[in-house]
Amino acid sequence: MNFVGSHILSVDQFVRADIERVFTVADMMRPYALRQKVTRVLEGAILGNMFFEPSTRTRVSFGCAWNLLGGEVRETTGIKASALAKGESFYDTARVLSGYSDLIVMRHEKSGSVAEFAAASRVPVINGGDGANEHPSQALLDLYTISRELADHGKTVDGMTIALVGDLRYGRAVHSLCKLLAAYQGIHFSLISPEALKLPDAYVELLRNHGHQVFESDALPTGIQQADIVYVTRTQEERFDTLEEAQRYKGIFRLNQAIYTEFCEPNTVIMHPLPRDSRADANELDNDLNDNPNLAIFRQTDNGVLIRMALFALILEVSDQVEASSRAVNWYTAKRF
Amino acid sequence: MNFVGSHILSVDQFVRADIERVFTVADMMRPYALRQKVTRVLEGAILGNMFFEPSTRTRVSFGCAWNLLGGEVRETTGIKASALAKGESFYDTARVLSGYSDLIVMRHEKSGSVAEFAAASRVPVINGGDGANEHPSQALLDLYTISRELADHGKTVDGMTIALVGDLRYGRAVHSLCKLLAAYQGIHFSLISPEALKLPDAYVELLRNHGHQVFESDALPTGIQQADIVYVTRTQEERFDTLEEAQRYKGIFRLNQAIYTEFCEPNTVIMHPLPRDSRADANELDNDLNDNPNLAIFRQTDNGVLIRMALFALILEVSDQVEASSRAVNWYTAKRF
Amino acid sequence: MNFVGSHILSVDQFVRADIERVFTVADMMRPYALRQKVTRVLEGAILGNMFFEPSTRTRVSFGCAWNLLGGEVRETTGIKASALAKGESFYDTARVLSGYSDLIVMRHEKSGSVAEFAAASRVPVINGGDGANEHPSQALLDLYTISRELADHGKTVDGMTIALVGDLRYGRAVHSLCKLLAAYQGIHFSLISPEALKLPDAYVELLRNHGHQVFESDALPTGIQQADIVYVTRTQEERFDTLEEAQRYKGIFRLNQAIYTEFCEPNTVIMHPLPRDSRADANELDNDLNDNPNLAIFRQTDNGVLIRMALFALILEVSDQVEASSRAVNWYTAKRF
Repeated sequence: MNFVGSHILSVDQFVRADIERVFTVADMMRPYALRQKVTRVLEGAILGNMFFEPSTRTRVSFGCAWNLLGGEVRETTGIKASALAKGESFYDTARVLSGYSDLIVMRHEKSGSVAEFAAASRVPVINGGDGANEHPSQALLDLYTISRELADHGKTVDGMTIALVGDLRYGRAVHSLCKLLAAYQGIHFSLISPEALKLPDAYVELLRNHGHQVFESDALPTGIQQADIVYVTRTQEERFDTLEEAQRYKGIFRLNQAIYTEFCEPNTVIMHPLPRDSRADANELDNDLNDNPNLAIFRQTDNGVLIRMALFALILEVSDQVEASSRAVNWYTAKRF
Repeated sequence: MNFVGSHILSVDQFVRADIERVFTVADMMRPYALRQKVTRVLEGAILGNMFFEPSTRTRVSFGCAWNLLGGEVRETTGIKASALAKGESFYDTARVLSGYSDLIVMRHEKSGSVAEFAAASRVPVINGGDGANEHPSQALLDLYTISRELADHGKTVDGMTIALVGDLRYGRAVHSLCKLLAAYQGIHFSLISPEALKLPDAYVELLRNHGHQVFESDALPTGIQQADIVYVTRTQEERFDTLEEAQRYKGIFRLNQAIYTEFCEPNTVIMHPLPRDSRADANELDNDLNDNPNLAIFRQTDNGVLIRMALFALILEVSDQVEASSRAVNWYTAKRF
Repeated sequence: MNFVGSHILSVDQFVRADIERVFTVADMMRPYALRQKVTRVLEGAILGNMFFEPSTRTRVSFGCAWNLLGGEVRETTGIKASALAKGESFYDTARVLSGYSDLIVMRHEKSGSVAEFAAASRVPVINGGDGANEHPSQALLDLYTISRELADHGKTVDGMTIALVGDLRYGRAVHSLCKLLAAYQGIHFSLISPEALKLPDAYVELLRNHGHQVFESDALPTGIQQADIVYVTRTQEERFDTLEEAQRYKGIFRLNQAIYTEFCEPNTVIMHPLPRDSRADANELDNDLNDNPNLAIFRQTDNGVLIRMALFALILEVSDQVEASSRAVNWYTAKRF
């Protein structure tokens, strides 16, 4: 695809070469995110960070990525006060807001809302999550993390074994990740979920049609054996019809250090789209894993900044200028990564 | 008036020469808002964007205008957590907050609150809307749009015909616009509203005392004939005593392409202070007008950025420095306007 | 202490030399806060201004202080939408958010939460208030104000007389201020409160153990005689078990100009941690004092910006670079202080 001036609405837009282009630019962004260097390549540019469904983490991650490139952020964090609540169409909201910034990131709880908004926007729009539908930068950061973690152990995405654990039915992150992984070769998928929360057939078929192997089970210990990556998810309470139904599946799979030691290969990488639910009745990923060097969950969120910087740079066609406008950091920086 | 260091609280502050001064500076801001050039003239300056009554659009517009001049924005978006809710006076709030920024934009639901705040502020204050009272930058952007749209067709504000449609009783935007237009010459006003929502007598008298012609009717088709500008408003539900009463007037006037074609002159400009209510029971300005080149509603919001940049530049006395500190934009920019 | 890279969690971290180091750097920041000069020393640096308990004033003050040093601010203003509400631990939140910024200011209603957060953070954290526990920058700005106000009258903190008035039991600001003052010499404390809201014994003992004199009373007029500083507080309604109980103490002490004239020494400085409650049933500090030049309450909040700039500069080790990167302000600036 041609990134310049494009909307990023769905992982369906990307072929493998596009994904790897994003990853190459993301690699280039690392010294800036690590605060070894500062760039001001987007000085004067404005991001409209429009979160009509609130989200601290994703909103701050996008805003921070823009700031790291030197730009300014204007944002909103809810829908109550917005014109949308007074009967304004997405068309109007998009036409108005796109006069205020150079690029818009939008999140809204309604599936398809961001595409509708983008169609009327006069500037590029990135989907920051539209309900149960899509959240493409999350899928990209997950795949980028898988790729870079595996590379550290001399492995590749092609041919890897990945275990997907938990609520595979409602988990938007898992669905999008499967779509991206379909473009790679010879992957072994181990799908671990209760019967009622199985990965929808469409995704299983998609993977099989692309020549991947898919195994399904409802037992964590056997499912995670031989996995290079174990990707754990929380139960998406908010997607169930009733809280009682959601409650039934809470805490059904719990990965901890003892299970990891007993069943996982050395250097099996542990991932999670976060937030993990650390309350006693859920606790799908135990805190006793926090010192395990293969726990990659915070490298995932760190990588999210790199991926979002890369998307911004590609869409606004500045990736070649970043280096030229850079300088050393002049303040104290912690060793963060 | 002398803009430097002044508060902008009401359209009553402006004589015609002041208005035109703002418009001249607004014209100068166009290449920056169009992202053809970047200026950093306010680099290091801080805007306090204090929206004690939430508003996405106006808040972002002011913040964006400040960012386009190179400054930083600190803001608030509600009253619940503020000291005002703990019994603090506007005097105290103003004294405190005016130590934090170079200029303050304030919105608050209480009429007169911004003037009370400004009296105690140590920095210039712009009224971003105080309830049913004033919202001067909206009136300026409306008049600026009228002026520039008419100029495109070889016409002037002096001598034009303007139809004001809908809730003329509670519409703050209409009232302020009438005050500004009073300063011009020989305007024909066609006021179209239900009897109960007529423009208050004080405004009708003001216009007549300044030598303008005023016609009132409750029929859209006849009222919009010969108009150079048709300015449509939504019913201000929130100002009525009961929702039932407001409901009675919802959808009473609906302008669409068929009516436009049948009754309007060619090139009649359509305006609306936005948001327009696109729900079926209201729909005062139909979406089938969206491709009509004379629909100026999004040029209005675009112009809002120019007007706000102009006010900032005049108050802080930097309009003469903008050009000198400018440079070309180095990132991809969409053709937006 | 070594400020570079350190968390600022409690006033207990500071010995007298540390306090005075902060104050020296704060003095250096004055021309920037007064908008006589602009510095860009933190250009490219990002503050995570994480207010999980909302607060307009403190949040804007920290953000403004960071902007005045040239940096960018990303922020959050509530807890509802945050991952913390979905069962995420402070550990996880800290690990994630500390990948997004160079320094974090955090406020949260739970005592001890900021320390828990800081333990997991990969960047320095400043406590912006953790419930009834600590708010160290408030205590520093109070002491800084006392010190600079006294210096204007040829006096010093050592040997001064200070009256603390009101709710001394629950007032976090008073407790922290007492801890800081303990490090000074020969102070006369006049504690004025109803019996039920007396300063907890631990603080009285602390002061006496450090050789200070402590007098307690429940009468305002006698208590404020001979005071160099009168520090008035509001009743901390939100800390009482019931609103009725809080109500009993509202308005119990009211300082106004008549009482000031009758009982205070000339040039007695009046302070308050703000907000003051100006409602008729409270009104602990009357508006008729607003023109009294010894009312230092707004100099306190102005000083808050200096103190926060100083903490940022010390932690990030840029205080020696501020001057070199400075330039004159090129826009209109009001005489603010």
